[in-house]
Order: sequence, then structure tokens, then C-alpha cells
Amino acid sequence: MITLYDHPLSGNCHKVRLLMSMLDLTWQSEFVDVPNEAHHAPWYGEINPLREIPAIDDDGHIACDSQAILTYLAWKHDPAWLGDSAEERGRVVQWLSFAANEIGNSLQPARLYYLLGEKVDIAAVTAKGLRVLGVLDTRLAQQPWLAAARPTIADLACLPYVAMAREGKLPLDEFPHVMAWIDRVAALPGYVSMPGLPAAKAA
Amino acid sequence: MITLYDHPLSGNCHKVRLLMSMLDLTWQSEFVDVPNEAHHAPWYGEINPLREIPAIDDDGHIACDSQAILTYLAWKHDPAWLGDSAEERGRVVQWLSFAANEIGNSLQPARLYYLLGEKVDIAAVTAKGLRVLGVLDTRLAQQPWLAAARPTIADLACLPYVAMAREGKLPLDEFPHVMAWIDRVAALPGYVSMPGLPAAKAA
Repeated sequence: MITLYDHPLSGNCHKVRLLMSMLDLTWQSEFVDVPNEAHHAPWYGEINPLREIPAIDDDGHIACDSQAILTYLAWKHDPAWLGDSAEERGRVVQWLSFAANEIGNSLQPARLYYLLGEKVDIAAVTAKGLRVLGVLDTRLAQQPWLAAARPTIADLACLPYVAMAREGKLPLDEFPHVMAWIDRVAALPGYVSMPGLPAAKAA
Repeated sequence: MITLYDHPLSGNCHKVRLLMSMLDLTWQSEFVDVPNEAHHAPWYGEINPLREIPAIDDDGHIACDSQAILTYLAWKHDPAWLGDSAEERGRVVQWLSFAANEIGNSLQPARLYYLLGEKVDIAAVTAKGLRVLGVLDTRLAQQPWLAAARPTIADLACLPYVAMAREGKLPLDEFPHVMAWIDRVAALPGYVSMPGLPAAKAA
């Protein structure tokens, strides 16, 4: 049984919820009250020394970092989610880095600024967020999925903070190829929503 | 034949040089004069729309992003560099994200601030760099390599900017387990140095 250390409004946790649902895994959610600093309690340091969510405990194997958890679960249950060739697997990691760094330092903090009042250089992260959406729109104008001819964990890693970009006051509707990609992800079997994401669509 | 779009002082390019050398691959370096904006020339946009180095052209397959290139080359030539199990491969990706995000937004910009006078919030990146070195030191106190019982691309992805941390005026010598790990990497067969990194050591 997998335990997900989780918060319902965390996009990083939702990446893991998406893959677990698409893989049809059995799991339980352990609420970590991050806005009230529960991730700094001593017990959580034993789970993740970096004091971040998500983390998972998979029958005793602890994994941290949303991109790393996606990789671990895909390897264990269905490696097709990682791409099929060296070329595809390299591109998957390129977009995992993009999710951790480019998205994680633009769309994600913009959302936290407006939702939780986090201290953020909002002009800088907004400008960077526009560039990030532009890069994604250019890519998705050429092909339906980010890293391969079909969905991979790269799409799941990038989806939540992109699809919730309006919560950070980014003009998501000006990026039509990104919008169409969000709809494609929402039509995948096993897709689950969260507040700020579209509902599941018929495939 | 692999062409590496390269700059001799780039730590991100050196990650790729390290793995290519350790894999005993044949490659040529194509100099991109980044400090003089050559990566913004039209021809380079065809190689990497993100306008970053490194990129590689491997007989027509273009790959960008240092972490993604390491993944691609390891898959193609020696997957043992990616770890052996789902657990190890997940941990490798965790440290690739750490290299792209935590190191890439602390030790790397601190170095660029002092070397090239880049505009950087030096107090913030220095504070973050100290935390990054602390996380690495704690990890490396427990085990000799970051993600598995032997070296993986996680170690190569993290090495350059950590080992050059003094160029960003970070007190590297206060982190003994990091220092010992740098020496272990420098003793690996095929290790190559660059300005700011230690010379190859006898194994």
C-alpha cells in the first residue's frame, strides 16, 4: 500500500495523484498541513529531510520529489510512461527538469503569491511565466504530447501548475495549443481533477 | 559522431564532457561564445529554442538540457549509469532535479555573479547555496554516492557547480563529506577536469 504525504491544493502532490490514478494503484492520503508548517514537525523530517511534499511511503520505500516519484512509480508499474527509446527518455527528463526549474520558479510561485500571499518577486515570476507558457505553446503546436508520440510522465509533471496558471493571474487563454493539451490530458483514462483544474473530459 | 555545443567554462557543458569521457565516446566540441551572446544568433535557435548550452547533435538527433543529455547518452551506451532498480532510478531523477533547480539557482548564479558580474540577488543565492551544500554533506555522510551504491549520472550532474563553489565564494572546505565525494569523482576512470575543478586523481 502506498501512503502519499499530501495536501489537496498542492499541484506537486497532484502530479503523483494523476499517475497513481492512471496506473490504477491503491493508495491512501496522509494530510500534511503545510500552510500551518506541519512539514517542519520532527516526524516529517524523518520522511523527507528537504521538508517538502509530496513524499510517498511504498511499503517501506520512501521517495521524495514529485518528478522522482513519477519516475519510480512508472518504472515499477508501467515503463511505457517513461518513453520507449533513449531519445524519448532523454526528452522526458528534459521536461521533468523544465517542470522542476522553469515552471517551479514561475507559474508555481505566481500562484502562491495570489493564493497564500507568499513573498515573491511577482513581476519577475510573471515575466518568466509568460516565457514558459510561450515555450510550451510552441512545442505543443508541433506535437500533441511533450516528449513522445503519446503521453508520458513529462505531461503529468508539467500539467498542474500550467493548467492552474490563471490562479497566478497568467493569461492562459492566450496560449491555444497549451489549452488544447490540457483538454487532452483531462480526457486520459484515470484523469482526476483538483480545485483549479478542469473536470475529467470524455475521451 | 557527437557534436557538443560547448563553452569551456560552462559547468553544465562539463557534465556532458564528463559522461562522454567516462563512456569513451568520440565527440567534437563546437564553441558557442555565450558571454558574447552567440547563443542568441539565429542558427543556434535551430539547435536549441531555449538558447542554452549544452546541446548535442548525435548524428542528427538533437538533445538539449544537461540532465536530459546525460539520460539520453546513458540509455544509449550504458544504462548502468541510470541505476539498476525503480528505487535507484527514482533517486537518480531526484538528484537530477536537485542539480537543475536547487544547485542551478544557488551555486551556479553565485559563480556567475563573481566571474561575469551577472545581475543576481547574491545574498539570497549565497544563503541558498549554503543550504544546498548542507543537504549534500548530510547525504554524503551516509553513503559514498548520491543515488546508488555506485556512481550514476546523478553524481555527474551535481559535481561541477558544487566543486566550483569557491568561485561563488561559498565555503566549500567546511563540508568535508562533499569534499571527499569530489575526490571520489575525480578518481573515476575517464574523469576530465576543467578550470576550477580538481585534476584527475589516481583511483
